[in-house]
Amino acid sequence: MYKLILLRHGESQWNLENRFTGWVDVPLSENGVKEAKRAGEILKANNLYPDFLFTSLLQRSIATAFYCLEAEGRGWIEVKRSWRLNERHYGALQGLNKEEVKKKAGEEQFMLWRRSYAVSPPPISEEGPYSQAGEPKYEFIPKTESLKDVLERLEPYWYAQIVPELVKNKLVLVCAHGNSLRALIKKLKRMGPEEVQRLNLPTAQPLVFELGRDLEVVSEKALEI
Amino acid sequence: MYKLILLRHGESQWNLENRFTGWVDVPLSENGVKEAKRAGEILKANNLYPDFLFTSLLQRSIATAFYCLEAEGRGWIEVKRSWRLNERHYGALQGLNKEEVKKKAGEEQFMLWRRSYAVSPPPISEEGPYSQAGEPKYEFIPKTESLKDVLERLEPYWYAQIVPELVKNKLVLVCAHGNSLRALIKKLKRMGPEEVQRLNLPTAQPLVFELGRDLEVVSEKALEI
Repeated sequence: MYKLILLRHGESQWNLENRFTGWVDVPLSENGVKEAKRAGEILKANNLYPDFLFTSLLQRSIATAFYCLEAEGRGWIEVKRSWRLNERHYGALQGLNKEEVKKKAGEEQFMLWRRSYAVSPPPISEEGPYSQAGEPKYEFIPKTESLKDVLERLEPYWYAQIVPELVKNKLVLVCAHGNSLRALIKKLKRMGPEEVQRLNLPTAQPLVFELGRDLEVVSEKALEI
Repeated sequence: MYKLILLRHGESQWNLENRFTGWVDVPLSENGVKEAKRAGEILKANNLYPDFLFTSLLQRSIATAFYCLEAEGRGWIEVKRSWRLNERHYGALQGLNKEEVKKKAGEEQFMLWRRSYAVSPPPISEEGPYSQAGEPKYEFIPKTESLKDVLERLEPYWYAQIVPELVKNKLVLVCAHGNSLRALIKKLKRMGPEEVQRLNLPTAQPLVFELGRDLEVVSEKALEI
C-alpha cells in the first residue's frame, strides 16, 4: 500500500482579501503561517513523517511546507518543486476581487469559471500587473487554464516524479494548491467532471490517501484540525 | 568564472546561550531569523540571485536558507541537503556551556578543541541527551570530529554535488555552519592548519567567491551587513 499526503497551502494574503490568485506569487497571511505549523503538529500527532516533499514554485506552497515540516522536525527531507504543481492559472481574472467579478460577469458565468471542469477564464494580457510573463523561473507560462488543463500538465509530473517515490514506499507529501490538488484527486478517484465541481479543499488540512498497486484509492482521510 | 556564496546560519538559540552545539538540532533565535532575512535582502541589493541551494540536515541551516531566499523571492530554486555539510561534531562537548568547559579543562585545552585543525574533543556517549544515535535521517554519525575530519567528509560532496552545479555556471548558495564552511574555505584557499585557526565566520554574512577554472579563488568578498 502506498501512502500520500496532500496539503493545500495555508491562508494567503489574497484568500483573505477574496481575490483570484492563480500564479500571482502572494505570501501566506499570518494566520496561514499558523495553519501551516498546525498541519505539522497534526501530522506528528498522527505519526505521519513524510520522506519526500513536492511543492509548486509559488511561495505560499513552499512556505507552508517549510513551516509544516519544521514543526514536525522533518525540514531535512528531500524536496522537488515544479510549476506543474502550481495553482490553476486564472487568466484575466488574476488579481481581481471575486465579489466584483461575480457582480460584473453574473453568478452563472462566475461559477462556470470557478468550478466547471473544462471552461477557462479569458486569457491574461502579458502587459498587466498580474502576468508572470518573463519570469525566468518558468519554462512554460499559460495564458489561462481550465481545471482540465491543470490535470493535463500535472499528469506527466505525477507519473515521472511523484509515483517513482511512492513505489519506493516513501511517504510522500505534496504541498500545493486548491485546484492543482483538486485535479490530482479527480484523477486518483476517477471522478467525473460533475463530481469534481463539488470538491473543495480547506486550507492546510492534511489529506491522507492510501493507494493500491494500480494507484487506486483504497482509503482516504482528512485529518482533524 | 564560477560563483559561489557561502552563508553561515543566523544566530541559534545556543549561540545565544554560549553552548557547544555541533550536531544538536537547535533552532534559530528570533534574532537569527532576522539575520537570515537580512542576508536575503543583502543578496538582492547586490544583484545576487542563487540558482541552486545546498544545506546541511540541521534546521538552523535549513531555516536560514528559507528565510534568506524567501526575502529574495527565490524560495523555489533547486535544493540538495546533506549531513556532509553539517556542523563539526563536537563529541562529548555537545550541549556544554563554553565558559564552564574552559574553566574545567583549562584555556589551552579549550582552544585546542575549538581551533586546532586535527584535534578532536573526547567522543560522545551514545546514551547522553545530546547524542544523535538512532536518528534515521543520518546514514553516518561520527562520535567526535576534528576540523580535518569535517573536511574529509565534506570533500567528496564538494566534488560530487556542488562542483557539478558550479561548472554549469549556476550561482550556488551553500548555507551551512561555522566549521563546515571553515573547512571548505581552507580547501578553496589552500590554507595551512595555522591559518585556518584564525579564520572565524560571522553569522548570516554572505561571502561571495569567484573561482577560476581550477576552482582556485580569484576573488573573495564579505558583503556588508
